Amino acid sequence: MNKVIFIMGVSGCGKSTIGTLLAEELSIPFFDGDDFHPKENIKKMASGQPLNDEDRQGWLETLNTLATQQLAKNSCVIVCSALKQTYRDILSLDIKARTKWVFLSGSFNEIFIRANARKDHFMPSELLQSQFDTLEEPQNAFKVDVSLTPEQIIKKIKNKLMNTSEFGLFGLGVMGKSLCRNLANNGFKIAMFNRHVDGVEVDVAKNFKAEHPELSEAAAFDNISAFVNALETPRKIMLMVNAGKTIDYVIEDLLPHLSVGDILIDGGNSNYKKTKERFEYLKSKGIHFIGTGVSGGEEGALKGPSIMPSGDQEAYNNVKPFLEKISAKDQNNLPCCTYVGPEGSGHFIKMVHNGVEYVEMQLLAEVITILEASGHNLDEIANILETWKNTANSYLLEITIDILRTKECNDWLVKKILDKAGNKGTGNWTTIASAELGVPSTLIASALFARYTSFYKEERIQLHANFKSETISGLQLSSTEILEAYQFARIINHYQGFKLIAEASDKFSWNLNLSEIARIWTNGCIIRSTLMEALVEVFKETTNILTNSQLITSIKHYKPSVKKVVSQCVLNDITVSCLGESIQFFNGITTVDSSANIIQAQRDYFGAHTYKRNDDDGVKSHHTIWNKTN
Amino acid sequence: MNKVIFIMGVSGCGKSTIGTLLAEELSIPFFDGDDFHPKENIKKMASGQPLNDEDRQGWLETLNTLATQQLAKNSCVIVCSALKQTYRDILSLDIKARTKWVFLSGSFNEIFIRANARKDHFMPSELLQSQFDTLEEPQNAFKVDVSLTPEQIIKKIKNKLMNTSEFGLFGLGVMGKSLCRNLANNGFKIAMFNRHVDGVEVDVAKNFKAEHPELSEAAAFDNISAFVNALETPRKIMLMVNAGKTIDYVIEDLLPHLSVGDILIDGGNSNYKKTKERFEYLKSKGIHFIGTGVSGGEEGALKGPSIMPSGDQEAYNNVKPFLEKISAKDQNNLPCCTYVGPEGSGHFIKMVHNGVEYVEMQLLAEVITILEASGHNLDEIANILETWKNTANSYLLEITIDILRTKECNDWLVKKILDKAGNKGTGNWTTIASAELGVPSTLIASALFARYTSFYKEERIQLHANFKSETISGLQLSSTEILEAYQFARIINHYQGFKLIAEASDKFSWNLNLSEIARIWTNGCIIRSTLMEALVEVFKETTNILTNSQLITSIKHYKPSVKKVVSQCVLNDITVSCLGESIQFFNGITTVDSSANIIQAQRDYFGAHTYKRNDDDGVKSHHTIWNKTN
Repeated sequence: MNKVIFIMGVSGCGKSTIGTLLAEELSIPFFDGDDFHPKENIKKMASGQPLNDEDRQGWLETLNTLATQQLAKNSCVIVCSALKQTYRDILSLDIKARTKWVFLSGSFNEIFIRANARKDHFMPSELLQSQFDTLEEPQNAFKVDVSLTPEQIIKKIKNKLMNTSEFGLFGLGVMGKSLCRNLANNGFKIAMFNRHVDGVEVDVAKNFKAEHPELSEAAAFDNISAFVNALETPRKIMLMVNAGKTIDYVIEDLLPHLSVGDILIDGGNSNYKKTKERFEYLKSKGIHFIGTGVSGGEEGALKGPSIMPSGDQEAYNNVKPFLEKISAKDQNNLPCCTYVGPEGSGHFIKMVHNGVEYVEMQLLAEVITILEASGHNLDEIANILETWKNTANSYLLEITIDILRTKECNDWLVKKILDKAGNKGTGNWTTIASAELGVPSTLIASALFARYTSFYKEERIQLHANFKSETISGLQLSSTEILEAYQFARIINHYQGFKLIAEASDKFSWNLNLSEIARIWTNGCIIRSTLMEALVEVFKETTNILTNSQLITSIKHYKPSVKKVVSQCVLNDITVSCLGESIQFFNGITTVDSSANIIQAQRDYFGAHTYKRNDDDGVKSHHTIWNKTN
Repeated sequence: MNKVIFIMGVSGCGKSTIGTLLAEELSIPFFDGDDFHPKENIKKMASGQPLNDEDRQGWLETLNTLATQQLAKNSCVIVCSALKQTYRDILSLDIKARTKWVFLSGSFNEIFIRANARKDHFMPSELLQSQFDTLEEPQNAFKVDVSLTPEQIIKKIKNKLMNTSEFGLFGLGVMGKSLCRNLANNGFKIAMFNRHVDGVEVDVAKNFKAEHPELSEAAAFDNISAFVNALETPRKIMLMVNAGKTIDYVIEDLLPHLSVGDILIDGGNSNYKKTKERFEYLKSKGIHFIGTGVSGGEEGALKGPSIMPSGDQEAYNNVKPFLEKISAKDQNNLPCCTYVGPEGSGHFIKMVHNGVEYVEMQLLAEVITILEASGHNLDEIANILETWKNTANSYLLEITIDILRTKECNDWLVKKILDKAGNKGTGNWTTIASAELGVPSTLIASALFARYTSFYKEERIQLHANFKSETISGLQLSSTEILEAYQFARIINHYQGFKLIAEASDKFSWNLNLSEIARIWTNGCIIRSTLMEALVEVFKETTNILTNSQLITSIKHYKPSVKKVVSQCVLNDITVSCLGESIQFFNGITTVDSSANIIQAQRDYFGAHTYKRNDDDGVKSHHTIWNKTN
């Protein structure tokens, strides 16, 4: 479709230069509007008199005719100051849909200096001022800053007008779709790709575009080559496909179409070790790779997720305007997106985020179990949890209250849900990372294993029958005690999660900023909470939250409750794996002399593994020939 | 050292054929004894008269002289029926130490058929019968069966006489040394290798051989080529080196020296996935690979460990006589060694063995902590544990009692041991395998993390100061209650360990025999116990020990105690991670309706992960648009 590109702006903004270059670049005709003034106008101007609107009427009509004639043959570039909306209305009469406006914009000073730097030209400041006074900024124009170089300006115009997109999104699943709409809502021109699979995935991108008005400017593809070619370079392509082998296949599919310097962003829940491998692999091909965690679920992705990108800082700077713009904003209106660190650190912290999330979810499940065992129905429990918002608010608490209140045919919907908990692998990976890094993330392991145990539904029914015991109903717990136990466990959960991050940061020399990480988790993500908000400040002082005086006070205050809740649950056959583990771990990590000396003696006894002593330098290894019984 | 090899046996057994071939193979002179008869003897025989012992005296002396003269120059082969011990005494007079006897042995029928199959020969059965009547079987000869092919016979003789070894052991660390002595004590001719590292590992194998009389026949090497060449083929080489990359380096070092059909045995604690990879790699080179767990520590390796080999059944049959002979024996005197299954299954079960071991150790450490908190000193605790042997005996219980009683300068030695528990990776791997396979091995994770927590000694001291609370002394527990809690947790521990094995067996189609695995763990290994002995029978009926009526009764009986112990410990700030988790897990796995429905609702709410229902077929996926609060 042919277009007329009008380049407009005040005298001296560089319209002719840009217009000429652009026409050259696009191989289309160039016209300078000033060349089309009638003789009368030229005479008047030569005599020093300014033109009035009446003088301009015919001239503008002439340009409109020129444009209309050109459109029948091809596109063209026309430069014309077109300062008023009425002028622009005449210029685009009956060809509006095929008219593109480029507005070269700058401050008075910028343009004054720029205009007078030209040879053989002098523009009095009064004249320029009158231009600015006349200017009515266009609403529907593509505004370009004149402080950029002509090359940059040409590229921007070309990208904008020739239908190239600024940002590509590959994979239109739940999260991919939400991110597309988010990007479009934020004014970005995006290209969207979803593969074609006969009879299964057909016209996914096109149909998606058709469903949402905000995507009217977005380009939809099911052909990889066309998708890649639609992107301005360096290309920025965010992959929102299933983590695992799929990512590698997608990378291989894309590679032949990419150019050196292009940037791939993996926004899925990839394993941090794999992200490092892919980073190195793509580096060898000259392609940048950014692994980023994205949290917030479907809704967060649409309205503003928490984003955790890592990789090269330089490559990040290229995608930063997009990611920060679409991310959630914290209390200070700063983006919940920050450059996390090198390699796979972004995916690492997303993994830990999900581990912490597993625990937060499990704790709520345990709390509900206790409240049910105490005789409350789900509406009553929702009401109790509602009161907890004052001191323990979190996104997960809020949605859990919603869930408890959701009814189906007068019964609670949640009661109809099969109690086998699924998982997508990140809790699993967090547990594995803890084991590998030597960090005791006991709550995450407990929450993971609680899900695994839930999966053995048939065995649970069988074993319940084997061990059936009389019902016990000796629970004597107030909702405040339960709340305090819950809060205790949540602090331990956050302690453990951030400890894992801190240890990984040390081990891999990532130099992560725990306060920044807490900050980007205060909004947009699943584990946002008032506790997380408090941790932003805490981590400015320490990497160990159990050394913070306020949290010490809280823990001391909550401890009697967690002891009471856990011991009563144990006595009443109620499963509280995470609450139980929180106090076990707390006792362990605050024990000066542990029973690990027994373990070391046993290891030395049967395996000659040696031991250290507590009464020498603690470095030398000792071995004892113990009294052998056999 | 030169030798005389006498090949003996009845007429027609093939002495000349074998003697000729052997001399050729060894490039040494061959002599047929019959060629040295004096004329009188030849005449007598030609006339049909048999020789008597007096006739033979001079002839045998001649052969002894021949042998003695040859020895001065080189080795030689002499064939001679030498049916009586007196004849052999004359033949070897004064050269006994350098005489080797090879006895070609077969049944009357075998030799009759064999002798008469020769062209131009006929041996009447009466003559052969008289030979058998005369034959006095030698005690110190190398006896070879004539039914083998000449090539096989030659190879056997060569292997035996030329100082080749039957079995090689690579790596003389604590375990490697003990296994060498064990093999030698069991009459095997072994070759031992330890690398040479200037100034660090010098003449390790030679010095080790010199220290132990039982190794007088063993060959010691620090040169790989010489070590490999000293082994009869197919070679059987057991690697006892550090697990991990070292194994791969050692394999690469050995490969150029090996022949197709040789067998490598990895007796270290290798990761089961790596064992599978190495198995495939070596298969591509024509080398068999057997991964085997070996448990028992230094002492077990010496006196009889539990051995858990896996790989090709056929290759296993080649090493079976060695491994079964040196292994511990169960109650029925059967070897605590069995072919476990394919690939890395042997290392997998060894890994789980160690995971179970971590828990058994941790439970003892927790029990001691409780008993100490109850006011007992370590001697008293040892005495209490001593009484537990009646109902809860195990190797680990026994050594723990020894440890508690060990004094240094009138104080308990164990109190001087630094309470930072080490680990070598198998507990870690078991936790990882559980996470990967979706099996809730909660106790192993707890025991692992308890060790990790112990390692943060400095932080424990700091946090203790932060949270210092008044000492509590409200423990009211009898030692019987503690014993019962301990027994409860041990049953759960074994349930979880074997469940992990069963799930891996299913997943990898290993077809493992749980009863056999329990059986080879009843002796030699670290987790041998009366409970393990009971499980041998239990697993003949079920793969789930919590369905066994006797164990159901035990669990029901122990449960009140574990509840009391855990709840009191929680109330008294005593860390009992594994005891605590045992009751949590038990409650979880016996709960019909768990709180996992809450988790599924949360996942569906924020991530549209969908859920299954309990009131339809349980297969369909459902998604709800929940009431959103924000």
